[in-house]
Amino acid sequence: MDLLIKNVLPITGDGKTPVDIAVSDGVIRSVGKAPEGFRPDETLEGGGRLCMPALINAHTHMYMSVLRNAADDLPFMTWLFEGVMPRENKMDLDQAYWGSLLSCAEMIRRGCSTFNDMHLFPGAAAKAAMKIGMRAVVNRAVTGPEGGERRIKEMLGEIEEFKGCKNVSFMIAPHAIYTCSTEYLLKLADIAEELSLPVHIHLSESVAEMNDCLRDHGCTPVEYLVKIGFFKNPTLAAHCVQLTETDILLLAEHGVSVVSNPKSNLKLGNGFAPLYQLDKAGVNVCLGTDSAASNNSLNMFSELNYAALIHKGTNGDPTVIPARKAFEMATVNGAKALCIDNLGKLEEGWKADIVLLDTDVPQMMPIRDPFASVVYACDGSETDTVIIDGKVVYKHKEFTTIDTEELYYHIKQITEVI
Amino acid sequence: MDLLIKNVLPITGDGKTPVDIAVSDGVIRSVGKAPEGFRPDETLEGGGRLCMPALINAHTHMYMSVLRNAADDLPFMTWLFEGVMPRENKMDLDQAYWGSLLSCAEMIRRGCSTFNDMHLFPGAAAKAAMKIGMRAVVNRAVTGPEGGERRIKEMLGEIEEFKGCKNVSFMIAPHAIYTCSTEYLLKLADIAEELSLPVHIHLSESVAEMNDCLRDHGCTPVEYLVKIGFFKNPTLAAHCVQLTETDILLLAEHGVSVVSNPKSNLKLGNGFAPLYQLDKAGVNVCLGTDSAASNNSLNMFSELNYAALIHKGTNGDPTVIPARKAFEMATVNGAKALCIDNLGKLEEGWKADIVLLDTDVPQMMPIRDPFASVVYACDGSETDTVIIDGKVVYKHKEFTTIDTEELYYHIKQITEVI
Repeated sequence: MDLLIKNVLPITGDGKTPVDIAVSDGVIRSVGKAPEGFRPDETLEGGGRLCMPALINAHTHMYMSVLRNAADDLPFMTWLFEGVMPRENKMDLDQAYWGSLLSCAEMIRRGCSTFNDMHLFPGAAAKAAMKIGMRAVVNRAVTGPEGGERRIKEMLGEIEEFKGCKNVSFMIAPHAIYTCSTEYLLKLADIAEELSLPVHIHLSESVAEMNDCLRDHGCTPVEYLVKIGFFKNPTLAAHCVQLTETDILLLAEHGVSVVSNPKSNLKLGNGFAPLYQLDKAGVNVCLGTDSAASNNSLNMFSELNYAALIHKGTNGDPTVIPARKAFEMATVNGAKALCIDNLGKLEEGWKADIVLLDTDVPQMMPIRDPFASVVYACDGSETDTVIIDGKVVYKHKEFTTIDTEELYYHIKQITEVI
Repeated sequence: MDLLIKNVLPITGDGKTPVDIAVSDGVIRSVGKAPEGFRPDETLEGGGRLCMPALINAHTHMYMSVLRNAADDLPFMTWLFEGVMPRENKMDLDQAYWGSLLSCAEMIRRGCSTFNDMHLFPGAAAKAAMKIGMRAVVNRAVTGPEGGERRIKEMLGEIEEFKGCKNVSFMIAPHAIYTCSTEYLLKLADIAEELSLPVHIHLSESVAEMNDCLRDHGCTPVEYLVKIGFFKNPTLAAHCVQLTETDILLLAEHGVSVVSNPKSNLKLGNGFAPLYQLDKAGVNVCLGTDSAASNNSLNMFSELNYAALIHKGTNGDPTVIPARKAFEMATVNGAKALCIDNLGKLEEGWKADIVLLDTDVPQMMPIRDPFASVVYACDGSETDTVIIDGKVVYKHKEFTTIDTEELYYHIKQITEVI
């Protein structure tokens, strides 16, 4: 399938000079002029819109969008045990599917093509992503040893079920060090190694996790995972708010990627991950929204904005995490963390996950610096068209792949009972 | 003029039960059922949208939207002296008018009815606000003694010119303690007293301001203003990032309102104002965007979100500044700070500045708690209709009062030369 996107302003340009982008079979063939003899099956008039690689949400829990605004401004334990878990326990797989599809729709409408979902409902997110045409990394959150074997079985079942499905990949996801025994963590690392899959884990999210680990293991959570030999696979650690200087060096040394979820970390009172220091130490840092139950939005533009702003505040330095750096975190770094090759840049040979942004709205005037515009001025609603894997899944603010009325009907029904 | 807004979900309700709102001559007459015999001149079908009082931007610099994305990720002095001032110096009054109108449009599209503008171009913001139908508080930023008499003259000229204009009011605005001598500050306080006008000043924004004041006056900026007797009028202090515990008590004691600009404070590396502590001490705290040159957006939904989230992070407590409190800061507290009576609530007898928000978008599903929805889930693009002073100025995402094509044409022309 050959697609020609005409007349767009690439984010890497001066914000004034339009280009055409040629796409063949889901891969960008050229940015500038279409190759000689290029005969597109479909031509999309860009209308002078700003054009950027799609954003990547490297940590979320898809089904939880139906728990949005259910438990806010509460202490963590009240939030979890009274707000979230009783509702989760009532949910079935069908409800998880519609919740996941709602999350897909919300993310695509805000310029995001790819998510990394840590879930409890095997199949829900993968099915939703395939329905809407999104790129999905799915991983069953497993805890053990209690019930751990059953969960591993479900996890392997999901991997088997969706193996070979286009744009669906997998990670192995022990939930956290405080919900998995040492033996269970190592067992999962072994499974990951056997299956050649990367690993995803919540790590050093809260002061409580840090203090409990110091008490139980006499070292920090990062040191503990190093000590037991957990980091033998490509690993993505979510949150990493509570880190010592040694932890940062250890994460860099072991090639661990970190996905920061700025808004969720603030909302739950956990604080600010040291992104500037992690990046400086050479750690691959990317961004995520966490779930709509602790955010309560899945808008990656907002995450991008937070990542660029809050660390200027914590470091007292306006030059920290400039717009281009924040944008890398939300795109190419995310792809690297999820082990997806050639994703996150608007360049020849890279995957065609492309977003067109309206420029005829006040907040986009003037553009001057496209990266600053996207990171500091956009709210995400500028997203006009989203192309994923070379296919136009969202065109002029309408989905081409799903019926939103049907989706919203189901969400309303679910909200009545959850 | 009688307006009936039918079938809306009030933010103060359960998010499910619709009401009608009756408005007469710019004032809310009822929320629930229209009064017996109410014969509206205009009926607006709300379509089950969420309905809230309009947001109030209590600190901005309107003309500076044309400087958007001109100088980012830079040290403060480079930003000011190389990014902002050379462009400001090239601007004329006509350009400032179009820049101000762009800011008005951006704010209305994001649910804001009222702004407080500290400016260098007398008349620009007031004229733009009257054109588009927005509520304006205008104040000329004055510095002195050098050139100070001329600026006071311009300031008084503007007050004279717009006196009696509906929905335009004034504040007296010495720029800051580091740009005004003690005598000049006191002279302006006297003028404010004479004219019965409130006062607006930048205060304790940066570490540099704090350190310079300690060096020059042997006390903090707040203590200095107390010592010289500056706080004899109702006063609104912008920023207040660098405060001691004593400063907080002094601000409370002198009834000074504080307008926090969370995103600008972060972007310029100044840090986090102690909003939770200020509020706890009884200080009236409200919110602003600062200018599009240091933000780079005028989206009050985003400011609201930052105010609710970042202080949970700095205080390590998820219960700090809950959604309702943040919403008060962005509405009724702003009106109080700007000395506008009966503005900022959706109640009988209050001014009819009303916003309708789309609910048929993913991020608004489910609503559950309307305040949480607005503060944590909305990005501002949900704004469908804005009523200011009982008049529908923005209806189903179109302005009724201005021609946006004309506006955008002028902004493009200005961007070529500024």
